[in-house]
Amino acid sequence: MRLVVIGGDAAGMSAAGRAKRTLPDMEVVVLEQTEDVSYSACGMPYNIGDPGRDIEDLVVRKAAVFRKKQGIDLLTGHRVERIDPDTRTVSGTTRQGDGFTFDYDRLLIATGASPILPDIPGAALPGVMALKSLNDGRSIKSYIARNRVKKAVILGMGYIGLEMCEALRALDIEVEMIKPGPVFLPRMDRDLARVVQEEVEACGIRLHPGAGAREIRAKDNHLAVDCGENVHMADMVLAAMGVRPNSREAAAAGVGLGPGGSIAVDRTLRTSIPDIFSAGDCADAVHVVTGEKTWIPLALRANRSGWAAADNICGGETILSGIAGTALFKVFDLEVARTGLTLEEARRHGFEPEAATIKTSSRAHNHPGASPIYAHLVGDGKTGKLLGAQLVGREGAAHRINAAAVALHAGMTVRAFSDTDLSYAPPFGPTWDPLLTAANQLLKKMG
Amino acid sequence: MRLVVIGGDAAGMSAAGRAKRTLPDMEVVVLEQTEDVSYSACGMPYNIGDPGRDIEDLVVRKAAVFRKKQGIDLLTGHRVERIDPDTRTVSGTTRQGDGFTFDYDRLLIATGASPILPDIPGAALPGVMALKSLNDGRSIKSYIARNRVKKAVILGMGYIGLEMCEALRALDIEVEMIKPGPVFLPRMDRDLARVVQEEVEACGIRLHPGAGAREIRAKDNHLAVDCGENVHMADMVLAAMGVRPNSREAAAAGVGLGPGGSIAVDRTLRTSIPDIFSAGDCADAVHVVTGEKTWIPLALRANRSGWAAADNICGGETILSGIAGTALFKVFDLEVARTGLTLEEARRHGFEPEAATIKTSSRAHNHPGASPIYAHLVGDGKTGKLLGAQLVGREGAAHRINAAAVALHAGMTVRAFSDTDLSYAPPFGPTWDPLLTAANQLLKKMG
Repeated sequence: MRLVVIGGDAAGMSAAGRAKRTLPDMEVVVLEQTEDVSYSACGMPYNIGDPGRDIEDLVVRKAAVFRKKQGIDLLTGHRVERIDPDTRTVSGTTRQGDGFTFDYDRLLIATGASPILPDIPGAALPGVMALKSLNDGRSIKSYIARNRVKKAVILGMGYIGLEMCEALRALDIEVEMIKPGPVFLPRMDRDLARVVQEEVEACGIRLHPGAGAREIRAKDNHLAVDCGENVHMADMVLAAMGVRPNSREAAAAGVGLGPGGSIAVDRTLRTSIPDIFSAGDCADAVHVVTGEKTWIPLALRANRSGWAAADNICGGETILSGIAGTALFKVFDLEVARTGLTLEEARRHGFEPEAATIKTSSRAHNHPGASPIYAHLVGDGKTGKLLGAQLVGREGAAHRINAAAVALHAGMTVRAFSDTDLSYAPPFGPTWDPLLTAANQLLKKMG
Repeated sequence: MRLVVIGGDAAGMSAAGRAKRTLPDMEVVVLEQTEDVSYSACGMPYNIGDPGRDIEDLVVRKAAVFRKKQGIDLLTGHRVERIDPDTRTVSGTTRQGDGFTFDYDRLLIATGASPILPDIPGAALPGVMALKSLNDGRSIKSYIARNRVKKAVILGMGYIGLEMCEALRALDIEVEMIKPGPVFLPRMDRDLARVVQEEVEACGIRLHPGAGAREIRAKDNHLAVDCGENVHMADMVLAAMGVRPNSREAAAAGVGLGPGGSIAVDRTLRTSIPDIFSAGDCADAVHVVTGEKTWIPLALRANRSGWAAADNICGGETILSGIAGTALFKVFDLEVARTGLTLEEARRHGFEPEAATIKTSSRAHNHPGASPIYAHLVGDGKTGKLLGAQLVGREGAAHRINAAAVALHAGMTVRAFSDTDLSYAPPFGPTWDPLLTAANQLLKKMG
């Protein structure tokens, strides 16, 4: 039996490795369009921000290792352009320009996502870049070094944009961030978003929400980012406007699509076409709070869905429960974490949500080194269930969010969550964990 | 209606304040034998270890505040010696030696716990001390300062002993720890306990398990702690051998007792006698994993049960789900956390437990500043349920444990837990959270 995997990133390589370990006699062919497989994509901003680190540090395992040690037929420089479910073949072109065709018994589409690029004049100018693949990381790092970048404009204010603004500040690069929408971190509670915004601005980043770039022009060895009323000059422009799923070839083959043009899969990672699976950033998932399909491409889900797809391809039965939308990032000295639904998302999904936001201390009464920590919880007035949580603080936000994420998976009520036995010691928090204090406040509102 | 509360510490004052807020017309009398109410008992080791901090920093709210601002009849220096359910009275003696008697309509016993003192000759010598009340903290801090303590022996190797060994080392005091039992941290996985032991020893603490103190003698201005084969010289001896519930008066009044001589309460904090409630370190609780009664006196439960008792005293219906036994402490640079049952405890309770221990990195691949983190999970082979978790690491253990604690409250299987959407960002962990990696390993063992 031959498994063909399209895409050799997190999901694809997880799946290939696991399938080969489970069924060593299975022929596993991975077709990857770049030369890179298995690297820490999420680590790129931190690496770019540190001139002392080699970008190649991010490589976890080289292609040769998968070939020799794991017996995987890993073909890099192979770009798949066509999937034919009738003949059960995939075909495409190599980097050298040669055509190729492979038969498959099982196919896994793990094509990931691509950065959204600005659809404006000048978007293709040198110095206008995006960060998704390791090659993007290499380009940005060497561009900054070669061009002695002093000023950058980031298009977008999402996680990647914020991680990159910290990286660029570490390189002493002036940063301006612009986006068309008027709201900073729209998927966060306004109080918590304000804390993040103040931190970012205090670190010297200039934020310009409410006016997107209309054109980028080359001017006197610089780039002029024209937003209408304002024109921002820069040495480089980073597009951090989000990603879209790489689902074109799948769609052309008749594979059903889900939210945002992602590839629709069931809980076993099967697509609408028999023997075609999909996993990773290109595939959708069930949201555990709404029970509805969603598309939130993040690293853990990519790895996990790769494994689960492999299990099911190999004849097992691994059923994934879905995602809670747990997301975490660091920006300067702040940890920012969320899981589940926002108040607004909860309303849109037909809940009758209430929310509570509290501010408390990251350590016990008078314990040295304490800083403020903010917790926000959303609950459903109808069922009493917890719907979402957010945390922001200099310490104690990153891992604390997981308690709420598990509660969402368990379908716990706010009341039950407020009664959980969470950890306490003076260096790590108040006696009542911030999430518990928020839950107690929320219970009062929910009546 | 008059509520009498015996004990003005965490549970007692939480209850008194909440009752008064809920029913402002209720007369709330608190009888506290010391002069201290509302202080951060858990913060004492950290305060003692820092000569620059005043021990009075630990006071959260003074007695006068409760009296004036909250309208609570808070009587300090009032020691209750007798509870009479027939006449519905409590009586005792004041610090000045006067007798007192109070009628009650509802009684809350929140007498807390007392340190276990060594029952050996010399236990009452000056310089042999225990740490439980704020007065204990004052005594220890001033004793160290006055006597220029250079060497200390700690009896016991539990949380308080370990927190105190760090505090004493911070004061440049040599520390030896002794205890009768041969096993260091017997309620932790052996691998994780070894990591903690190595940290403690690397910080200069000498551990002598397997031989308890038989006698303490005063000798040449020092204390000689005689353990049979070895005699350890010290300037002070700290008894950190655990605590026992203060339930004597309750027992004498016919109130039913629970594990370890604690006061038995139901999920609404009612004792076996009508209109008598109990909360805090003196009361037992239901363990959410075993469903059986247990006695694990910790700060969050004390506060929470005080609140819940007040709600029920005031005519509400607050039912507590129980405790998971979540415990957390810091020792030198390590965070040590646990929740639920150990493998051995699980066996004793009739489960068919399996366990897995993993070691991974506290940050993503090649992310700077990473350190090892250890995770240990226990699951039940019969039901598939998660039974317990432990974490040790220089970062990322303290709050991570809460994900497992919530899973225990929810009765989650290891499989379901392994499928939860936990947070990931490179500065905070590997893509697969250490708890998830441990869960994946445990699933293999559970078959």
